[in-house]
Amino acid sequence: MAELKMTAEEVSGFLADVFPQLAGRFEIVELAPMRARVRMRMQEADLRPGGTVSGPSMFALADVAFYIVTLAMIGPQALTVTTNCNINFMRKPAPGAMLGEARLMKLGRSLSVGDVTLTSEGSADVVAHAALTYAIPPQKAGAGG
Amino acid sequence: MAELKMTAEEVSGFLADVFPQLAGRFEIVELAPMRARVRMRMQEADLRPGGTVSGPSMFALADVAFYIVTLAMIGPQALTVTTNCNINFMRKPAPGAMLGEARLMKLGRSLSVGDVTLTSEGSADVVAHAALTYAIPPQKAGAGG
Amino acid sequence: MAELKMTAEEVSGFLADVFPQLAGRFEIVELAPMRARVRMRMQEADLRPGGTVSGPSMFALADVAFYIVTLAMIGPQALTVTTNCNINFMRKPAPGAMLGEARLMKLGRSLSVGDVTLTSEGSADVVAHAALTYAIPPQKAGAGG
Amino acid sequence: MAELKMTAEEVSGFLADVFPQLAGRFEIVELAPMRARVRMRMQEADLRPGGTVSGPSMFALADVAFYIVTLAMIGPQALTVTTNCNINFMRKPAPGAMLGEARLMKLGRSLSVGDVTLTSEGSADVVAHAALTYAIPPQKAGAGG
Repeated sequence: MAELKMTAEEVSGFLADVFPQLAGRFEIVELAPMRARVRMRMQEADLRPGGTVSGPSMFALADVAFYIVTLAMIGPQALTVTTNCNINFMRKPAPGAMLGEARLMKLGRSLSVGDVTLTSEGSADVVAHAALTYAIPPQKAGAGG
Repeated sequence: MAELKMTAEEVSGFLADVFPQLAGRFEIVELAPMRARVRMRMQEADLRPGGTVSGPSMFALADVAFYIVTLAMIGPQALTVTTNCNINFMRKPAPGAMLGEARLMKLGRSLSVGDVTLTSEGSADVVAHAALTYAIPPQKAGAGG
Repeated sequence: MAELKMTAEEVSGFLADVFPQLAGRFEIVELAPMRARVRMRMQEADLRPGGTVSGPSMFALADVAFYIVTLAMIGPQALTVTTNCNINFMRKPAPGAMLGEARLMKLGRSLSVGDVTLTSEGSADVVAHAALTYAIPPQKAGAGG
Repeated sequence: MAELKMTAEEVSGFLADVFPQLAGRFEIVELAPMRARVRMRMQEADLRPGGTVSGPSMFALADVAFYIVTLAMIGPQALTVTTNCNINFMRKPAPGAMLGEARLMKLGRSLSVGDVTLTSEGSADVVAHAALTYAIPPQKAGAGG
């Protein structure tokens, strides 16, 4: 369970196929067993008056970063879905790009559990922290994965 | 604390001024002390392949519905911010409009706490449930706010 | 899925067998499909200076009330375990007995999801609110339940 | 804000005074700015059939560990209270002692936010992970703390 089943390139390609609307917003900066660092570029729709990043956009970064690390560990399964997300918002983000550092703490047969720490690019201050659970659909015997 | 300080029209007007990017997406269907029902129209960007609603869009509905009920009870304070949101995603939503039923369980001087139940329009099945906390900024003495 | 598989008496008997250390602390006041109301008597160890109820004791009430409603709907399965619990503590409880009103929002094959609202006996004010998820172990074919 | 205001001995003494019922259960193993490691000895009441640790006992460890790190940073303020706790339970703990590694991610004037990672002594596997928020009461001007 402790090894990557996909490279960053493979995960990016899979995401681009399955969620084309996310294209260009998220970039995998680093990928390692049970860990991923993902960068979110800001678009007009992500910003709020004053230049700060919206809550739903930060939720999206947490969700995508955790999806990426889960996918990289289990292989390409589009049906994997978020079942729980708890976010604490702590500081106002800077208007620029944000980073999400995702960490898997448990990778079971049916659930993947961990957290994502969000920072503004260029600062170590935690902007938000999310704990997430993903449900992994049962594997069909003999399925390619 | 148990009475509305703003009507649905006043809250809608305030939102349109402060968050113009939300215009046309959210509609206050019902507003009562400590309760609000908010409707989210779907836009292309809210949908995922298969026609289902994205997680970040459901987060946005929960967040906006809770902001609306808090604002209606405390009066127009744009600086009120989400500090915690915990969402359980339970069922795949239908592709159409969604409703968020927000309920305040505590309205204190510095925190507003409650939940939002999300359903697809026309169905009673709970699609997602969010518990939220908002921080209310300290009132300036003599402020009209 | 919408009918009870156990009566309050059956659930109480099962709990007393499997968790004898809980005996005398919790009482099922009401049981209906997808809902349960559970009363927690206070013991010395539940109290904090000033007579208030401790956080872990409120967590215990939320957890047991949700276990009871899940069990009543799926039948006696001791291996059902809490996977997530999010609690918001809102008011100081009175020193006496507390009630937990549990509600199932989703009962799937592998997960049960819902919430529990905690009040002090004799007051309608919400003291705490918990959202919970339980994992239900896979049923063995032909098992008695 | 980044320095300890109390030593481990001072925090332990304060806890023993204010929460005498916790005496002997919790031990501060390590204390550093924004971090604490706390050990929970098991008592009969903490265990469940099969020798595993109960959910409420794990909640108690998370809560106490986070209280300790908050207190050590802000000074002795008994009125500091938990407002939110989100726990993910991931693995069955071993029957022995458990460790809680608490980390403050934000220490503001009115809220302290962070997480606690729970492990069984002698194992690196995460048993449970909790995100917590504590409300810090307003400081009286000139108060000794």
